[in-house]
Amino acid sequence: MHEGGCRATAEGYTRLMFQNFDTLADRSLGAPRLARLRAEIARVGLDGFLVPRADEFQGEYVPPSAERLHWLTGFSGSAGIAVALADRAALLSDGRYTLQIPTEVDTNAFEPVDGVATPLHDWLAQNAPAGARIGFDPWLHTRAQTRRLIEGLAKRGGEPIAVTENPIDRLWTDRPAPPVGPLSVQPLVLAGEDVGAKIARIGDGLDADALLLTQPDSIAWLFNVRGRDVAHNPVPLAFALVPETGRPTLFVDPAKLDDAVRAHLAPHVDVAPRAALLDALDAVGHVGARVSLDPAATPEILVRRLEAAGATVVEAEDPVILPKACKNAAELAGTRAAHRRDGVALAKFLAWFDREGHATDEITCCERLEAFRAESGELIDLSFGTISGSGPNGAIVHYHATRATNRKIDRDGLFLLDSGGQYRDGTTDVTRTIAVGTPSAEMRRCFTLVLKGHLAVATARFPVGSDGVALDAFARAALWKAGLDYDHGTGHGVGAFLSVHEGPQRISKTGRVELRPGMILSNEPGYYRTGAFGIRIENLEIVTPAAEIAGGERPMLGFETLTLVPIDRRCIDAALLDRDEIVALDAYHARVRAEIGPLLDAATRDWLDRATAPLGAATEGARGSIR
Amino acid sequence: MHEGGCRATAEGYTRLMFQNFDTLADRSLGAPRLARLRAEIARVGLDGFLVPRADEFQGEYVPPSAERLHWLTGFSGSAGIAVALADRAALLSDGRYTLQIPTEVDTNAFEPVDGVATPLHDWLAQNAPAGARIGFDPWLHTRAQTRRLIEGLAKRGGEPIAVTENPIDRLWTDRPAPPVGPLSVQPLVLAGEDVGAKIARIGDGLDADALLLTQPDSIAWLFNVRGRDVAHNPVPLAFALVPETGRPTLFVDPAKLDDAVRAHLAPHVDVAPRAALLDALDAVGHVGARVSLDPAATPEILVRRLEAAGATVVEAEDPVILPKACKNAAELAGTRAAHRRDGVALAKFLAWFDREGHATDEITCCERLEAFRAESGELIDLSFGTISGSGPNGAIVHYHATRATNRKIDRDGLFLLDSGGQYRDGTTDVTRTIAVGTPSAEMRRCFTLVLKGHLAVATARFPVGSDGVALDAFARAALWKAGLDYDHGTGHGVGAFLSVHEGPQRISKTGRVELRPGMILSNEPGYYRTGAFGIRIENLEIVTPAAEIAGGERPMLGFETLTLVPIDRRCIDAALLDRDEIVALDAYHARVRAEIGPLLDAATRDWLDRATAPLGAATEGARGSIR
Repeated sequence: MHEGGCRATAEGYTRLMFQNFDTLADRSLGAPRLARLRAEIARVGLDGFLVPRADEFQGEYVPPSAERLHWLTGFSGSAGIAVALADRAALLSDGRYTLQIPTEVDTNAFEPVDGVATPLHDWLAQNAPAGARIGFDPWLHTRAQTRRLIEGLAKRGGEPIAVTENPIDRLWTDRPAPPVGPLSVQPLVLAGEDVGAKIARIGDGLDADALLLTQPDSIAWLFNVRGRDVAHNPVPLAFALVPETGRPTLFVDPAKLDDAVRAHLAPHVDVAPRAALLDALDAVGHVGARVSLDPAATPEILVRRLEAAGATVVEAEDPVILPKACKNAAELAGTRAAHRRDGVALAKFLAWFDREGHATDEITCCERLEAFRAESGELIDLSFGTISGSGPNGAIVHYHATRATNRKIDRDGLFLLDSGGQYRDGTTDVTRTIAVGTPSAEMRRCFTLVLKGHLAVATARFPVGSDGVALDAFARAALWKAGLDYDHGTGHGVGAFLSVHEGPQRISKTGRVELRPGMILSNEPGYYRTGAFGIRIENLEIVTPAAEIAGGERPMLGFETLTLVPIDRRCIDAALLDRDEIVALDAYHARVRAEIGPLLDAATRDWLDRATAPLGAATEGARGSIR
Repeated sequence: MHEGGCRATAEGYTRLMFQNFDTLADRSLGAPRLARLRAEIARVGLDGFLVPRADEFQGEYVPPSAERLHWLTGFSGSAGIAVALADRAALLSDGRYTLQIPTEVDTNAFEPVDGVATPLHDWLAQNAPAGARIGFDPWLHTRAQTRRLIEGLAKRGGEPIAVTENPIDRLWTDRPAPPVGPLSVQPLVLAGEDVGAKIARIGDGLDADALLLTQPDSIAWLFNVRGRDVAHNPVPLAFALVPETGRPTLFVDPAKLDDAVRAHLAPHVDVAPRAALLDALDAVGHVGARVSLDPAATPEILVRRLEAAGATVVEAEDPVILPKACKNAAELAGTRAAHRRDGVALAKFLAWFDREGHATDEITCCERLEAFRAESGELIDLSFGTISGSGPNGAIVHYHATRATNRKIDRDGLFLLDSGGQYRDGTTDVTRTIAVGTPSAEMRRCFTLVLKGHLAVATARFPVGSDGVALDAFARAALWKAGLDYDHGTGHGVGAFLSVHEGPQRISKTGRVELRPGMILSNEPGYYRTGAFGIRIENLEIVTPAAEIAGGERPMLGFETLTLVPIDRRCIDAALLDRDEIVALDAYHARVRAEIGPLLDAATRDWLDRATAPLGAATEGARGSIR
């Protein structure tokens, strides 16, 4: 998804495309570049070197200047790490990329490894030469990762060696310059809480003299700013040091700041160039400060610098994560507005698709959908690269259409479309599975089982204090009864004009974080039949206190659905739904019609009326057979 | 529950009662005994002493000779620990006993403490005098508990001191003798696996030179024996040392062994007196053996003895737990037979209850139910003290009727009865909530919500590899939608003529152990309205591979229900059930009728026919209103 980069500039957005469909990989480059890397490693006296996909900020997207793993191996996925030893090299990634890696990477040069089954430290414990000194760039590995690295190599009597210059950066002569995306102010009417109040709140909860922040979305939230340094995530690549009391410092390239942003920051925040961070860490270290940092996010170099200067490092989860996840009333109001706007774009797209889009192809659909979103005049970016999968391509969970794979929309089948927009007031993420011609009975059966799971989550009530594990099972129960399942989580957190994948909340087998009011989560069960079709139905939901329940005794939570897009009735086998499910679907469609209809042109409104007609009425005659 | 003790002797079982209903506590004894304990503590130069409810075997039941906590405080619950300091004393227990403790314990002498919110080590860290030397009996505390104790006291600069003689044992002059319950052979036809094969299987999986077993049910399973030392759990209090290869030694009082048991053990197992264990640990230590033991179960004294002798201690979960939990075909066949026999007793009881029992009281119902079970001639013990709760007493989750609390069966209400039997071929545990007169509409609504949860678990399918967390949510979903919930887990593991509470499997919010075929679990959602009524519906279920599902792709698991007892149709509001639920309930009742009916006298069979009549037929006319 990330290849599109972020092309928005001062020139304006509406004519730009946030996606591209080129096939990037040139598999032939990997072997010679690996040879040059090995020569460089040997020159500096190391036995190997690690090349992660991550940059200093550990985000899902990195700027072109940080695409070191892609430069070395050709791999374009969003998670992975290469290990180059003298006589072998490996590329560790996860199951999402099993099929993609051989198409992009010379697997004779880089042996593909399942990094979930064999994490890096285990691979090294098994494969590093005895006593190996393995180089790593301490800007690109967190404290937690480095700790595991030390443990893994110790099993071979070896150790990781922090390099002061990354050898890839010496070899990569045409490396792009780092991004200087301009910061922008997130207005108080949308942020809902003043920067000063946020800083005070974080400081109050701090069990340390200062807080080191290295996650760009935490910094964006805390200072009510946004950035344009990477694709799809509107965050500034920057660091911040927040004292328990007093003024924080934002470490950022001054070229990213205009007068408006400077004026916005001035009352609360000092600004310094990014290069000043290390000296600032020395300064807090020299006075023996206790500095809180998140070992899962903080680059090893920053922790070592603090320790060397005399600071006491306090390891704790980034304290911005939870307040950021629990959206306030202004953020929720903005997100609702963004979803109405996005719903209009989707309605226009789906009406177009039924009219003529079904005769086009995956890329054309991506382009048209982006154009409909851009018509609002408020689209700042897509929230991720659109997944547009026709027929069997819909069964590839993280499919990204390229010119090489672009497929005509299959007749008499299903078309899966997963997309989202970044607007100043909110972030959207919606998947619809659309009937083309006449879907088969089996497709409709599977679609309806997925829909049952989606509705079970949307209508669930759960006690205050619950986590996302229970809801994950609700989403799967109907599929399980049919002997089916899907291999991804049911829901991820979503930001407010921030990252579309945001922690800590999740709906998954391992989602053990308490769900709190104001959290936004996706609700996206699916079903994938390899080589045939894919189904996913995704809405975003806000965790909300449930309305008073007659006779209820305990405070319960539930969801308010944000996404307002028809679910394709032609894909449903209504005989598999019970009455409660039909009532819930019809109520959702009535809401879509009421909220989106008035915003549409007449032709699209006609389409919407048909697409949201009650299923209950259509199946009234067959009701006896529903149960 | 444990007060009944285990009164079975060689005289035979059928005329014995496995329960009593006396009120035991004499609150006035606590203060003078505490004073005598304090004098003894001071005499030996300690600052305090710990008196846990546990004995050396850490089981749910202890013999009368080990009821030190009860002797000191009067507390009769199954979990707790007293701490006596010079100037204060506390009794730590959990929320189950909040109401019970003030009725049994002089709370001026022993301050009640919620041991879940404030575990022992935290209480000591907060309350022990600086530098305190707190005595503990190292036979009664596990390695894991002792480790936490050391950490907690270290925060006060103190330390736990292992005593060589327990001061309670010096003070308790009329302490009963330790039990010498006879061992018995569990026949191969019921155990299903030869002792030699079991020993070889455990040895094969061992990553150590020897295994120290201290959990009586593990020892019972491994050697195909049972015991009679404590109430309700048919286990021998004994230890065992199992070498990786070669003959294990069972350390047990020789008085418990008759010729049959000796002959059964002789081919595979050496026998030694319990007192020989310490020397045996010295011997393995002196040759530097690596000894595996479970820190969560092994008394601290045994671990210290091994370490002092030179052994290397390998901490690992008791490797018998998982094989024991996954019952083989013979164990399952036996358990099915036990449940048919138990179902006959329950049918007789329920028919009697409808005839005349509803005019009696809680204790009379306990006695009659035990008598019906005993009529089989095969009842060896109850599997726990029967919970017989009329009206508001049904809302007390761990209620135990005494002469003081004994309540008439409430008219026009609900009666909750949770009971089980120990038979040579299996262990049962069943809860039914029974209509008395005409239950209110609210009672029926709540009962039906609980039933929906029970059926959701019983009919669930779930992928191989699932744990019990998903099922726990299925059991609660209908209650949650009504704003209701219950404060206990949904299911516990059950043994095969072993403990009715057996790990590691669970259905609960924290039940993260994989459910495997052959595991037996209870399925017991409930609802409790304090001061009014309680509802619980409990069957035992076997985890089984699900039958082939048409169109299914993945191996799924499901349940086979063991318990064969009608669920009271008079408590059901059928309008709240969907068709699938009615079909499932009717199918269950048809099975109960088919399997239990032929085993009954004519009058009870007539009752069963009525009690298991299909709900579907009765509600056919109302079907339109069901949905």
